[in-house]
Parts: sequence; structure tokens; C-alpha cells
Amino acid sequence: MSEFDWIAWLKNAARQKLPARPDVLLGIGDDAAVCEVPDGMQLAISTDTLVAGMHFPADTSPADIGYKALAVNLSDMAAMGAAPCWFNLALTVPDMDWDWLKAFADGLLELAAEHGLQLIGGDTTRGPLAITITVHGLLPKGQALLRSGAKAGDDIWLTGSIGDAAGALRQWQGKQMQSMKLRHRLDRPTPRVSAGIAVRGFASAMLDVSDGLAQDLGHILTASGVGAELELGRLPVSHSLHEFFPDDPARWRLQLTGGDDYELCFSAPPYHAFAIEQAMAACGVSASVIGHITAEPGLRCLTPEGETLALANGGFQHFDGPPNVH
Amino acid sequence: MSEFDWIAWLKNAARQKLPARPDVLLGIGDDAAVCEVPDGMQLAISTDTLVAGMHFPADTSPADIGYKALAVNLSDMAAMGAAPCWFNLALTVPDMDWDWLKAFADGLLELAAEHGLQLIGGDTTRGPLAITITVHGLLPKGQALLRSGAKAGDDIWLTGSIGDAAGALRQWQGKQMQSMKLRHRLDRPTPRVSAGIAVRGFASAMLDVSDGLAQDLGHILTASGVGAELELGRLPVSHSLHEFFPDDPARWRLQLTGGDDYELCFSAPPYHAFAIEQAMAACGVSASVIGHITAEPGLRCLTPEGETLALANGGFQHFDGPPNVH
Repeated sequence: MSEFDWIAWLKNAARQKLPARPDVLLGIGDDAAVCEVPDGMQLAISTDTLVAGMHFPADTSPADIGYKALAVNLSDMAAMGAAPCWFNLALTVPDMDWDWLKAFADGLLELAAEHGLQLIGGDTTRGPLAITITVHGLLPKGQALLRSGAKAGDDIWLTGSIGDAAGALRQWQGKQMQSMKLRHRLDRPTPRVSAGIAVRGFASAMLDVSDGLAQDLGHILTASGVGAELELGRLPVSHSLHEFFPDDPARWRLQLTGGDDYELCFSAPPYHAFAIEQAMAACGVSASVIGHITAEPGLRCLTPEGETLALANGGFQHFDGPPNVH
Repeated sequence: MSEFDWIAWLKNAARQKLPARPDVLLGIGDDAAVCEVPDGMQLAISTDTLVAGMHFPADTSPADIGYKALAVNLSDMAAMGAAPCWFNLALTVPDMDWDWLKAFADGLLELAAEHGLQLIGGDTTRGPLAITITVHGLLPKGQALLRSGAKAGDDIWLTGSIGDAAGALRQWQGKQMQSMKLRHRLDRPTPRVSAGIAVRGFASAMLDVSDGLAQDLGHILTASGVGAELELGRLPVSHSLHEFFPDDPARWRLQLTGGDDYELCFSAPPYHAFAIEQAMAACGVSASVIGHITAEPGLRCLTPEGETLALANGGFQHFDGPPNVH
């Protein structure tokens, strides 16, 4: 199979599984795609790369790699409150392995179909496995949710629960028995697209938790010139994570510094709390208040006993991360 | 230097060297950029990846790698007749080598500044060297130049001259004495952006010559359902290429099958010939008629004696290319 056979196959598979959006005037197959942004809308644009052995364990299935490569990009759209619309795929593979490529496309197109995205182009090259996706999303003018709007007194909200992906990674790295539930959250994170759109007009600042809650929340604090107090007893935790990591301080550290959760963290004035609960319920996503924004800078993590938890490491950074994954 | 130090440095360097475009409402630093497309305009979007050892020789300087990574993407905008406006950079590097990164950014931002582009975001990851750029361009509604509009009787035009990049690669692979002029064309191809815009309204089909003229022109022929006759004696050739490759048939084959030229190839009705010459002169780009579109399918390459030149290989394909480069 040649590069051109693969592109023809993918183009056809995408045409069968994904919608033909009216705002895409020219899709795959020319020198560039041609798209139109509806009146009154702005475009959110983001790029994320997954590198084999760095962003997913070596034993990750090709379908999960395809799914995750798109999921982490959709999560960036969710974090802006944008509705994702189009994406480009830059795929670098060591060889043209038909089974691998087909499974990869299955995972990728499954998630794309779920969100009504159109694949508008890309590039396939030969080299060590890496996937770069550029995703586009639509936003009503002026409604993007930035990192810079948090104000003292705002509640801090978190969707879903965090720590599962880090728990799975810890088990995988330690060659321990692996929880399938935790591993699923590492391999197939759920981008909170509908939740991101639902809090437009309520949230004052938002981002997605990709590098660890402490570090990512730190970006909001820096951009907004504020601080925060987190109540560790209110951190949402899954049954599986609690089962495998029963010790509170150890689990809190995992939740605060482990990456790859792709939940949304946002701030909002307390008087929007009821509206946010309603909006979250309407899109079937759980969300909890886990602390509040303070005028005093810095992040303080308080145990239920009112003590401060010390964090050795603010969070995840690609170039300081563990050697095998991240 | 950490990943965050590099991003902060690049953001600052980009701010100093590149324009702050009014259509970019939010640039580097949040979960996504936010941009606006002016009324009456459409968006052209394209992605291209360069992999070390595959798309550039191992001894290419970091500044040239940065330049070329953007140049090949701008060439796709040129091939649509679009005016490039914004780009994203996904950079995968084996380590955070400050000197390398700074030189890479210098080459990249030099070309971006020349075209008035804004860097709107990206991702830096660790792994084997690869660069993926997604570029955006603006087009007046309905004026994109596709591959599918060529008609029998149209002239076939080519900007600049072709074969230099392939000549340089041949010399490098054969460990021969290298012509600096040829090598410069391989390392720093000139995207024909102004020429692409200038032929809007005249050209019936267009693309850029990245994989070799025979193969790329073949895409126009297939998409348009036509054939072509090329006159090899009219293929524009640089002095350097003629000097190092004096044998006509060998040089023609190099020109027809060698990639990496990034010249524009377009078809246009003969009655636009004078207007095209004027338009090309106005933007300082040479352009020649090298043949014409035929109703009969297939590509025929005719020597000045009227004989047909046989081509062993239609052109360049990443996965069938030579082992070291391409």
C-alpha cells in the first residue's frame, strides 16, 4: 500500500463516517481545504502532538491512539467554550502497516463522528510514530473563555473526577495489576465539549486539566493575577481510584500532579452556582466546587483537617516527566 | 531551559518580529487561538510535516529547517491563490537545545515576517525531530484555484525554474561537490505567494511542484479529466543546473521527477497569456509556458526533436523514495 492508497482510503472512510459540513467548501485532496466561518462567529484554533512512548504507553492500541490524538485536541476546544468543526491530521508512521492504519483511523473517526467534525486534510509522512492534529472550533463573537478572567471570591469548579489517568500510568509504570477502568480513562479521555459550551456566560476563566490540576490551575492564577484555596476533601474521586489508591494524601498528590485527565477546571462567581449545576445536568456531566479564588496569590491545598498539603512538584512538564511516558 | 521557558521565549521573539494582526483576537498562551475571518473572505487551511532525514538532509542547518518548514506550507497557500495569515507550529525535538531552537526560530520567523504572518500557537514535544505547521490563508469568496479546472487547449505555465533542489539532493546523496546555489534552493525554497495571488482570475487550475513536475501535473490532469503535452525544450532551467547537469535527457528526467522545487504549475486559456505575463512581471516572478492541456488523457513529454521521453518513475512518493532523504 502506498501513501496515496492510504490517503484515498482515509478520504473515503471519512466521507462515509463523518458529516459533509456546509461550511467546508473543499475538503481533502487539493493543496488546501477551503472553509467558511458563519457571520457572527469567531474561530478557535489549536494544535497538539502525541509522540509514541511520550504521550501514550508503548502498548496502547492503534484505535486508542487515534481516539486520544483527537480527544486531547477537542479538549482544547472545550476549554475555550468552542464547538469543534474541522480538523487536520498530520500522521508520521514508521511504515505503511495497513492493519495499524485502519485501526488508528477507526478510533479517530469514531470520536470525530460523535462530535460532527469533518476531516479537511493532512499529511502522511514516514518516521518515528507521532500524530499532530490541528482542530478548529466556532465561537460566538467575544464569548471565548480565557484563562485570565478569574476574580477573588469566584468558586473553582471541576468536571468529572481526576487522577484516574495518572493512577493507570502509575500502575503501568510499576508493572502492577492494571485496573481496566483506570486504563480506559488514560487511553480514551472524554473531551468535555458540551460542558465547555454550557458554561459560556457563567464561567470567568477556564482550561482543561492536561498536565495536572495544580500546574494547570496555576496558569489561571498567573493569567488572572489571583490565588486559590483548594479543599482536598472535595476533590472528586472515582470508585476505582479510591479502591487502588486508598491513602488520602498519596491520592491527593496523584490527583493534583497527575496529567492526562482532560477534565475542565473553571472559575465562576458564586451567584452562578445554581445555573451551572443546571447546565451541567442538562449535558450529563457531573461538576463540583473544589475551592475558591483568593486575592492573595499562590495555591493552597487544604486537608479536611485544615492543614496545608505540601506538593514536591507543581505538576507535569513534558521535558521533566518520567522517561517512558509524558 | 524548560518547555515553558522556550514557549515564553518564542512568544516574545514572535511578538518582536511579526505583526500583531487585527484578525487575531487571542494569540499564543491560552488553550487555543481566537481569530476572525473578514466578511466576504474564505479560509484556506493546510498542514505539512517535515521529518528529519526524510524531508531534509541530516546536515541541514536549524535556521534552514525552520525556514523550509514554513516555506513548504506557504507554498500550499500560494497554490490555492490564498494570502497566508496565521500559522501554528508543532515542534518535536529530541532535547531542549537552546542554540538549535534559537537558530530554528530565526529561520522560521524570518520567512513569517516577510509574509506578514502571525504565529498563533503550537505545541512543543520531545521525540525524534519533526516539524508540523498548519497554515491559514484568506481568499475572496469563490476564488480558490483548484486542481480540477484545466481545459483542453489551456497553456501550461510554470514559475521560476525546476530541478535545482533535485540536483542538490543528487549531489548530496552522491557525496559529490555541492553547488551552493543548488543547495540553497533545496534548503530555502521560495514560496510563490504573490504569483499565486496574481493569477487569480486567469488560471484555470493550479498546484505547487513538491513531488516532481510529472507527478504533480498528473494530479491536475486526473482531477480535470484531461491530458497534457510538455515541450521539454521549454522547461526553464537555471544556469547552475545546466552547468552541473549538461546532458539534456538526464536533466529533463531530474526536472520532471525531482521534488522540492515549490514552483507553481498552472493552466490558463491562451487568451490570458499577456495578462499573466504582466501580472508575473508586476510581482517579479518569471513564468514560462511549457506545454498545453489536451483532451486525450495521459502526459506526453516531447523533446525538441519531437520524440517522446520515457519516464521510469512518475515522480516522488514519500514511502517509495530514496532511503535517506524524502
